[in-house]
Amino acid sequence: MSATPETALAAPTTAAELDAAVEAAQAAFEQGRLADPATRAGWLEAVAAGLEHDAAGLVETAVRETHLAAARLEGELNRTVFQLRLLADEIRLGEHFDATIDHADPEWGMGPRPDLRRYNVPLGVVGVFGASNFPFAFSVMGGDTASALAAGCAVVHKAHDAHRELAARTARAVLAALEGAGAPSGLFSLVTGRQAGEALVDHPLVKAVGFTGSTAGGRALLDRIAARPEPIPFFGELGGINAVFVTPKAWAARRADILNGYAASFTLGMGQFCTKPGLLFVPAGQAEGIRSALEAALAGFTPARLLSPRLHAGYADAVDSLRGSAGVRVLVEGDFAEEPAPTVLRTTAEAVRINPELLRQEMFGPASLVVEYADEAELPALAGLLEGQLTTTLQAEADDDVTALAARLADISGRVLWNGWPTGVTVSYAQHHGGPYPATTSATTSVGTAAIRRFLRPVAFQQFPAEQLPEPLRDSNPWRVPQRVDGVWRHPDGAAREEQQ
Amino acid sequence: MSATPETALAAPTTAAELDAAVEAAQAAFEQGRLADPATRAGWLEAVAAGLEHDAAGLVETAVRETHLAAARLEGELNRTVFQLRLLADEIRLGEHFDATIDHADPEWGMGPRPDLRRYNVPLGVVGVFGASNFPFAFSVMGGDTASALAAGCAVVHKAHDAHRELAARTARAVLAALEGAGAPSGLFSLVTGRQAGEALVDHPLVKAVGFTGSTAGGRALLDRIAARPEPIPFFGELGGINAVFVTPKAWAARRADILNGYAASFTLGMGQFCTKPGLLFVPAGQAEGIRSALEAALAGFTPARLLSPRLHAGYADAVDSLRGSAGVRVLVEGDFAEEPAPTVLRTTAEAVRINPELLRQEMFGPASLVVEYADEAELPALAGLLEGQLTTTLQAEADDDVTALAARLADISGRVLWNGWPTGVTVSYAQHHGGPYPATTSATTSVGTAAIRRFLRPVAFQQFPAEQLPEPLRDSNPWRVPQRVDGVWRHPDGAAREEQQ
Repeated sequence: MSATPETALAAPTTAAELDAAVEAAQAAFEQGRLADPATRAGWLEAVAAGLEHDAAGLVETAVRETHLAAARLEGELNRTVFQLRLLADEIRLGEHFDATIDHADPEWGMGPRPDLRRYNVPLGVVGVFGASNFPFAFSVMGGDTASALAAGCAVVHKAHDAHRELAARTARAVLAALEGAGAPSGLFSLVTGRQAGEALVDHPLVKAVGFTGSTAGGRALLDRIAARPEPIPFFGELGGINAVFVTPKAWAARRADILNGYAASFTLGMGQFCTKPGLLFVPAGQAEGIRSALEAALAGFTPARLLSPRLHAGYADAVDSLRGSAGVRVLVEGDFAEEPAPTVLRTTAEAVRINPELLRQEMFGPASLVVEYADEAELPALAGLLEGQLTTTLQAEADDDVTALAARLADISGRVLWNGWPTGVTVSYAQHHGGPYPATTSATTSVGTAAIRRFLRPVAFQQFPAEQLPEPLRDSNPWRVPQRVDGVWRHPDGAAREEQQ
Repeated sequence: MSATPETALAAPTTAAELDAAVEAAQAAFEQGRLADPATRAGWLEAVAAGLEHDAAGLVETAVRETHLAAARLEGELNRTVFQLRLLADEIRLGEHFDATIDHADPEWGMGPRPDLRRYNVPLGVVGVFGASNFPFAFSVMGGDTASALAAGCAVVHKAHDAHRELAARTARAVLAALEGAGAPSGLFSLVTGRQAGEALVDHPLVKAVGFTGSTAGGRALLDRIAARPEPIPFFGELGGINAVFVTPKAWAARRADILNGYAASFTLGMGQFCTKPGLLFVPAGQAEGIRSALEAALAGFTPARLLSPRLHAGYADAVDSLRGSAGVRVLVEGDFAEEPAPTVLRTTAEAVRINPELLRQEMFGPASLVVEYADEAELPALAGLLEGQLTTTLQAEADDDVTALAARLADISGRVLWNGWPTGVTVSYAQHHGGPYPATTSATTSVGTAAIRRFLRPVAFQQFPAEQLPEPLRDSNPWRVPQRVDGVWRHPDGAAREEQQ
């Protein structure tokens, strides 16, 4: 085998090594998909335990490579481990099969219906590209890899250059855990280098790609994948501006709280979250008050280095470009030192109507833009100037009439928050981490149990003998999965499961 | 308004008319999505009744334009009407919302969980391109349009040039029914002409495209859509070869029945089905017997004209090309008269191993290719030479060991049949009409209740007040839809629904 963690550290993966990794992944996929859900869940849980076992070393390596705080990284690793276990529980339930059984029906309204049964099968080998800003939760064993493995796919992960040592160490823990749990060799592997990444998305055996990163990088991969002879799904999470709208009533009632919450959220993790609130729409006319409140809120801020020199340079360019735009002024002066102090810019609704691009400039770091509006009635139209967002937020009071604005926000984003802040993405059944382009390239989520569905496709079986049917489609239901039978859902153990919750 | 059925007949839709149709569709979408599922179901049922009301005229027009038999077209219209009513029932149930509620949980394993709720919302305006071979079921009010409307989208349909008069007549019935039922004006419209079709897929307000047609036409649209600034999903059903594999045991036990079934299936509707069996793999060495059996089975065949002169020419070219390939011979000699007699070609496993392209040539008309194999053990590898298929079929006996072959067939196709024939696609809960590329361009189905999901995207709401939540996400569940609450599915009226079945 090629592409071991050690070679990943030593040198970029060669073309031959990449081929070998993908072919081994295909073989492991074909073997691994024969496993029942409990067995596969055991593999995920072994990986979770393996990561926990090496937690101290992983976090120490991550601190060194990413400059993120140890406590933040410990929380992220905890979240990553939790996610693996939640996905393991989910596939044990068998929700992801979407098992649907139509018995033969001679009286069916359009003419006799044959026995027809459908369930979801894994796509095959998945290529995953991790992000620099979440070295655990959106990287080697992050949401894309975990949900693809849960679906029954094999994964070839392209390590992010910003944390190659951590990637290799994570991969070692994962490989040892999978081997110990009896998973087929090749089910997961790590490759490094840009050329290997390109060869990965071009490879005919790769059936889907997951990506978390920049809009430019994501668009380049999207176009590359569109040029394949065989199109495949590309699940790209490209970024976010995460606009927050404050109504006049909320502003009057809670201005200090809102500005404190905003300051904490846009500077969290040095502003290097795809859910960082990059825009705050507030009533006009109180710039000086906002400035002094934000300066006070940011007084206790402890700056740190950004994830990489490349991101630092990109951050400085983005802030400089926006502050030099017509109609934009500095509200809170920051800097671009090695450990940058936060910057807040301000502009007006009038300026963004003239140049909506002001609303579309992601500043990946501790900076944000305050937009002053004159009239609450403008807000739905201002929201209409935004591109697709991962999240949008309403800061509103109970007696506000925000129906039109809330509808517009649901149109343009994957998650809408009420009186909260978008940083912090829980991993759960209802989570949706996605949003219209350019936030993401598909209508799927990369976080939560629903992320598994991305890596599955349906297959129907017509008039198959019972013993030839896959287990989830048998009337005897040996795996006790939910089945929709002749249109009606049946949940085995429903009562028992309800008690578990 | 532009783009009425009358202008569609008179001249191609102009650029200004296309813009107006899409903008009217967007306005109708924004108004129509406020309707509850029962109201929207009523619109679908009104359309079903409207089509039934004009059934005689529609079928008469279709016979004239398509040369398909009246009985076949009556059945297809019945299926189209049935589909509308089944989709209406489905959205009344509320399955398509996938409503998921996570209550706030301070003990959640990765840290306190906020109240988070997710459901599916419609994408917006959908462009639909119909097929010539199903002038009802895959055309103006076929599966793509019906499922997009069921999802809550608006539809701009590009009429197929091969049945423009029928398209206009169908659209008249649909528009009258929608107006009578109180649906917003512009929710459905018809446009014609190639330029309008191109402008439709380019239009920034169009959020998804459905297509049924040729591989070349579908690939051209796919590439055009990939070049949009904003990528959108393209649900293209491009064609099929629909290979059938006969085991030696089945051949020995049921040769005559199999050849009769094959002859009936590949000539049904003059072989102009995307599910036509275009390949039959049989044990080698009985060519003369097959020839005489097929000639006998085809003796009563009544030829008819193909759908259009263009398709007739394409059919003749495809058959000529394949019969001129190395290793291919004529088994049953047909012709390319205005009403063509069926052609059956034969080749060997050895020839297709040398040139797998022999297996990838769709002959859209009454022709098929018999492939003789020497050894049953070759079958999985032969299946591996196939491209993605809408369907594959096993003709096997109960004591055959076909595990490896069946797994390979599930890998490459959307529906696998056992001892049946692929023509005839029932509309039901479990149906999956799709398959790996080039059969289709996505992992979705264009037939059955699951087709609705293609035109939806999830949105999550975090910490929203109850009265601001969409109805499917309220604890009070006013629409009585299925809800997954803290991981456990709850089906209101479950018992009552079970009795309905």
